[in-house]
Amino acid sequence: MASRTVSQSASLREFFRATRQHSLDLAAPLSDADASAQSMPDASPAKWHLAHTTWFFETFVLTPHMPGYRAFNPAYGFLFNSYYESAGPRLRRDRRGLLTRPALAEVLAWRTHVDAALDRALDDLPDAARALVTLGCHHEQQHQELLLTDLLHLFSENPLAPVYTEDAPFPAANADAHDWLAHPGGIVSIGHAGDGFAFDCETPRHPVLLQPFALGSRLVTNAEWATFIDDGGYRTPTLWLSDGWAWVERDDVTAPLYWQREDGGWSTMTLAGRRSIDTAAPATHISYFEADAFARWAGARLPREAEWEAMAGSPALSQMFGACWQWTQSAYAAYPGFQPAAGAVGEYNGKFMCGQFVLKGSSCATPADHARNTYRNFFYPHQRWQFTGVRLAKDI
Amino acid sequence: MASRTVSQSASLREFFRATRQHSLDLAAPLSDADASAQSMPDASPAKWHLAHTTWFFETFVLTPHMPGYRAFNPAYGFLFNSYYESAGPRLRRDRRGLLTRPALAEVLAWRTHVDAALDRALDDLPDAARALVTLGCHHEQQHQELLLTDLLHLFSENPLAPVYTEDAPFPAANADAHDWLAHPGGIVSIGHAGDGFAFDCETPRHPVLLQPFALGSRLVTNAEWATFIDDGGYRTPTLWLSDGWAWVERDDVTAPLYWQREDGGWSTMTLAGRRSIDTAAPATHISYFEADAFARWAGARLPREAEWEAMAGSPALSQMFGACWQWTQSAYAAYPGFQPAAGAVGEYNGKFMCGQFVLKGSSCATPADHARNTYRNFFYPHQRWQFTGVRLAKDI
Amino acid sequence: MASRTVSQSASLREFFRATRQHSLDLAAPLSDADASAQSMPDASPAKWHLAHTTWFFETFVLTPHMPGYRAFNPAYGFLFNSYYESAGPRLRRDRRGLLTRPALAEVLAWRTHVDAALDRALDDLPDAARALVTLGCHHEQQHQELLLTDLLHLFSENPLAPVYTEDAPFPAANADAHDWLAHPGGIVSIGHAGDGFAFDCETPRHPVLLQPFALGSRLVTNAEWATFIDDGGYRTPTLWLSDGWAWVERDDVTAPLYWQREDGGWSTMTLAGRRSIDTAAPATHISYFEADAFARWAGARLPREAEWEAMAGSPALSQMFGACWQWTQSAYAAYPGFQPAAGAVGEYNGKFMCGQFVLKGSSCATPADHARNTYRNFFYPHQRWQFTGVRLAKDI
Amino acid sequence: MASRTVSQSASLREFFRATRQHSLDLAAPLSDADASAQSMPDASPAKWHLAHTTWFFETFVLTPHMPGYRAFNPAYGFLFNSYYESAGPRLRRDRRGLLTRPALAEVLAWRTHVDAALDRALDDLPDAARALVTLGCHHEQQHQELLLTDLLHLFSENPLAPVYTEDAPFPAANADAHDWLAHPGGIVSIGHAGDGFAFDCETPRHPVLLQPFALGSRLVTNAEWATFIDDGGYRTPTLWLSDGWAWVERDDVTAPLYWQREDGGWSTMTLAGRRSIDTAAPATHISYFEADAFARWAGARLPREAEWEAMAGSPALSQMFGACWQWTQSAYAAYPGFQPAAGAVGEYNGKFMCGQFVLKGSSCATPADHARNTYRNFFYPHQRWQFTGVRLAKDI
Repeated sequence: MASRTVSQSASLREFFRATRQHSLDLAAPLSDADASAQSMPDASPAKWHLAHTTWFFETFVLTPHMPGYRAFNPAYGFLFNSYYESAGPRLRRDRRGLLTRPALAEVLAWRTHVDAALDRALDDLPDAARALVTLGCHHEQQHQELLLTDLLHLFSENPLAPVYTEDAPFPAANADAHDWLAHPGGIVSIGHAGDGFAFDCETPRHPVLLQPFALGSRLVTNAEWATFIDDGGYRTPTLWLSDGWAWVERDDVTAPLYWQREDGGWSTMTLAGRRSIDTAAPATHISYFEADAFARWAGARLPREAEWEAMAGSPALSQMFGACWQWTQSAYAAYPGFQPAAGAVGEYNGKFMCGQFVLKGSSCATPADHARNTYRNFFYPHQRWQFTGVRLAKDI
Repeated sequence: MASRTVSQSASLREFFRATRQHSLDLAAPLSDADASAQSMPDASPAKWHLAHTTWFFETFVLTPHMPGYRAFNPAYGFLFNSYYESAGPRLRRDRRGLLTRPALAEVLAWRTHVDAALDRALDDLPDAARALVTLGCHHEQQHQELLLTDLLHLFSENPLAPVYTEDAPFPAANADAHDWLAHPGGIVSIGHAGDGFAFDCETPRHPVLLQPFALGSRLVTNAEWATFIDDGGYRTPTLWLSDGWAWVERDDVTAPLYWQREDGGWSTMTLAGRRSIDTAAPATHISYFEADAFARWAGARLPREAEWEAMAGSPALSQMFGACWQWTQSAYAAYPGFQPAAGAVGEYNGKFMCGQFVLKGSSCATPADHARNTYRNFFYPHQRWQFTGVRLAKDI
Repeated sequence: MASRTVSQSASLREFFRATRQHSLDLAAPLSDADASAQSMPDASPAKWHLAHTTWFFETFVLTPHMPGYRAFNPAYGFLFNSYYESAGPRLRRDRRGLLTRPALAEVLAWRTHVDAALDRALDDLPDAARALVTLGCHHEQQHQELLLTDLLHLFSENPLAPVYTEDAPFPAANADAHDWLAHPGGIVSIGHAGDGFAFDCETPRHPVLLQPFALGSRLVTNAEWATFIDDGGYRTPTLWLSDGWAWVERDDVTAPLYWQREDGGWSTMTLAGRRSIDTAAPATHISYFEADAFARWAGARLPREAEWEAMAGSPALSQMFGACWQWTQSAYAAYPGFQPAAGAVGEYNGKFMCGQFVLKGSSCATPADHARNTYRNFFYPHQRWQFTGVRLAKDI
Repeated sequence: MASRTVSQSASLREFFRATRQHSLDLAAPLSDADASAQSMPDASPAKWHLAHTTWFFETFVLTPHMPGYRAFNPAYGFLFNSYYESAGPRLRRDRRGLLTRPALAEVLAWRTHVDAALDRALDDLPDAARALVTLGCHHEQQHQELLLTDLLHLFSENPLAPVYTEDAPFPAANADAHDWLAHPGGIVSIGHAGDGFAFDCETPRHPVLLQPFALGSRLVTNAEWATFIDDGGYRTPTLWLSDGWAWVERDDVTAPLYWQREDGGWSTMTLAGRRSIDTAAPATHISYFEADAFARWAGARLPREAEWEAMAGSPALSQMFGACWQWTQSAYAAYPGFQPAAGAVGEYNGKFMCGQFVLKGSSCATPADHARNTYRNFFYPHQRWQFTGVRLAKDI
């Protein structure tokens, strides 16, 4: 029993240290100003991500579970709580970019302080607190992805189109022909069960009855998207959901986010600056509205979440992970028997089950060990600053 | 064969005549001004409903299918098209209240003209056109309900709280104790099949796999809702969806729509003017956000659409129809294999499958022959000017 | 003394009766619906004008000064108070179009009731109350103009372009060449003094020191405005005030309000329906922003209020009255020594002295006996639904 | 002639160098993040001020007048043009906080480059270009004040209430009794004439005819403002302009900007952090609406611009300069005979003559040699993030 705990601690310690270090690595190329600016209410400054993930460990682990621990700075609770009503009031989300203080260096000092305390405390933590450390690491991995996508949005607003790094992640190309992979339908089980980590919303694992269907073998490419544009996709209201067409008209949408027409083609903003599109790379920064309209134009439809998950292990399907999050037509909703986690972290997922759609897979910006078949990402249908793309589906 | 057609025609003719007459009956108590005003973009003037339903028959049946028919007034197409992109441009939805012309009398004259033409044409219409007449009658029934709820909203904005009719529809009281009715789960079939009329979105009928659950035997009452309020339901963020709490805070929501505190209780606006609430009547004019928060407060949840439909025939469940539409936790989405109807009426349902929730049953304002088990009504989660209420569910 | 009072009463009675009758005449062509709709927050329904002017007499004259008078309907105070904080709370301005009740006929009955009461009371009213009757008549004359301009705006929003009357007022043409009439400057007196009626803001009469200047002999014509458009006036930011250019860009302004391009020219909306513009008629429905930009384009400027008033009697200047209100570059502000009227009517003018510009003269919709040299009309610089036009000025 | 030019150059060189150095001194306490954030569209980041003032010299002096000069970075024109339509397109004003690049250090390098170039070029510049250097220095002085007030606003939004410097400027206290200083009226001359520098809007000097009046001997104090609050000043609509009351209600205004109730008094945000108010210091961060309401409450009024200027030299009046800008009731408008400066800098003032009110004097944040009697500062009536205060006036 003791040895098991020790080895678990070792592994958790390692996971914690690696996760915390990875955030620092991601922030390394950023100036204090880069790390402090907020380009839209949906996005947060990199410094805020670094701080909020630290707040998570301090608030949910150290303060309640480490005897004698004192908060580094009591004012930080107000500044870096995201949306936990149970954890008290907080700064308005759209004002995060006004926090030029604490400086990036002060936030990094806070991280050092918390990391050292947690490292000392880890062996003595009760299981429930250790589970929160695990959750906190997965939470931080989510914010690592957001740090990159939020930064990309910020840099896209700068006419200088700054380069975050020449070695930036981007969805890899796949020049294969598009094919269909069939599934016979029937009862399948989806959702998480067993020992590994999963968020509460992935549970309970449960059976679902499917009709026969097929999934596209790869993601829709930039070349295919350009054809959709050239065919008047953004000017044909009957291709769009009612809310989607209203969005197109209000925001004058004519292409994926970040695309700009250049002589002889299109460019897009990347973490390595503005680049010509790679025609064989998957189209990305696509809203649900666009994904749905494209699928209709293509004579297909978007997958249901259970369909995607039922075929997730098939080797014939490429780009399931590591390229783009894939919109499903499934609203983000509770699985039968779903129970939110106990305590404040019960606000993590359940309260967002309204108006959002599930995305499956993972993207080029997702930490590799963060992806799994049962993962349920979710965004509103107009949002597209994540690395989102389209895999087609059809009834058969 | 001929006789079958005649008898069908007779029946359709009867349905058409009765439907068209019922709209006139509903509008009879209204002045020209009452019938022309629009209290919010979501609602339409009664006159507009009378005109739009007429436009439907003229545009989709008479013009294409009755040789020699000429539109009563070509300008009306622009004024009274609701949202059919295929049928051309249209007046902005929020400007319908500015159409003081054509006067109510002119719209009624148009109705007479169209009714007479369709009566003459009916026997000679091809089957597809006859199906559109049927659809147009069901469409008009939907607008009959909207005419009443939109009028109620308009009158609620008038400090004089006008009475539409003393003999107004309202959800009937049920003083029975609340009970739970269990269902064992398993595969059930939902959706429409067979000969009777249904909207495209109710098809195809298909199997669904359910977990065991129970439904509440009756709707939540005004008395229960008042307890929720007294218990701080509208001041407790952890009871609410994230979007719901934002809505509560932004709109300063503290009670169902139309409720006002009076000495010693609550009043509400009805089609018979402002009245004290009936404690045993079902709580109504409830948003999805409120329904969901109430259910959480009550230690229960909202039903899924398939759960509701699977138990719809049970005699142990009261108020399934004719009282209040009942929010489900199911997003309005395509059934497996769904195909929108052909032609412009394909815009009727499918393009709204985003961001809305299904309501089952029917309300006191629904024409009685318009209700059925497979019916799928849908609204956005903040909307509550319909006669919407809450039936609880729980896992077992 | 008594005889003076009697003759004054006779005259005031006559003025009161004529004014009240004129409002009825203006409303005669309107349906209940026409009279009840509100096309924008700035405009009010005709019925509301009929009611508000009645409320003025009831609230400020009859209730306080006629022993035993009882308000016709106590609820009307809330409905028909415009902006008098001293007179209690009131319906939000943008909701006036929701008052389908009281019906037009009920408002007319109220008018009859108040008119009869005031007719009976008039001889016995104290001087202060009689002064309020006079004020109320001038107040009603202002609303008579607004009734027409608000109706024009309402009808302009109706794609049917309804005709209010074929015999509608419009600014008369003047085909004379444009000339300049010089003034040597020096000390002039402006503002009201003496016995006749004036609003408080026109007082006190006071000296002003002017530099030499000249005024245009007539208003700017539609032909001249079309040249401004053709010369790129609406696409040249350096012609515009900063706020004006922001308005042009935000609202995509390309021509005066109501103008539409037709084959071979322009049409505009009038109280007689949509008509081709009369090239020799004065350009109207012009905002201050447009007036100022036009003047800059023309190498001229707008008049100052005192300049306009100093030359108001000159026979060489045409269209000073009865065509279009004429924008001045003078902000609406207190004259030196200005004191608001005592009591609630002190809110009539003074509290609007911020952000608005003075217009001089009168328009084709102004009751003829309502115009005078000292009159100070005022609107915000973006507003243009009144009959507003441009007279040029320049330094010499 | 040559010697005059040399000595003038010497003096202009000195002014230029001192002005440019002062901006650097003001920015010295700021981090890159502090200098890059934008707290509202009205305010700009400190880095942007440093860059924009540099752009002014590069665009209007060096590029057109220094042979062979090449812009440091051609992209900066788009980033740092403020509102000069003649100088081409520019970044949206509300996006200035997204420019995390160029970094502060890069902007400082640009400053060094431009300063060196201008230092070399100065002796050879034609008179018109030298006049633009002078204008550019006064322009930079304006931005020095804005740098401080914009930073104060940014820091006020940070719950940590950062200290810019302990040695911060603030409006000095004056415990003297309030007295009235009379002026007999008559013709006075206002506006600029002669050799010294003035902005175009201060010219031409011209006579104005005044009525007798008196000015308050000092500014309204914090103690007096607290009394206004305690007396219900912010809850009494009849004290307010109509637009002012709408602003109070919409923004829930209950005190000057930055004031917070503390136990036993009020605190306010300063450049030295949050501090208790000094009761004898002048009330500051006051909107025109508040200034006007306070004056009405006090039985007084705000001065007219000409009144203030006519008495500006009187030794009996304290705090005319160096404490708070003083709202006048005069709209910012063209003086008779006003001609905007030639070229792009003609956009400097004239196009803002709409909807704004003149403020006279200067504030604790104004460079001392920037103030003069004829100075015309201007802001919209709701704006109050400058060091604005109230001097009373009255008719006599």
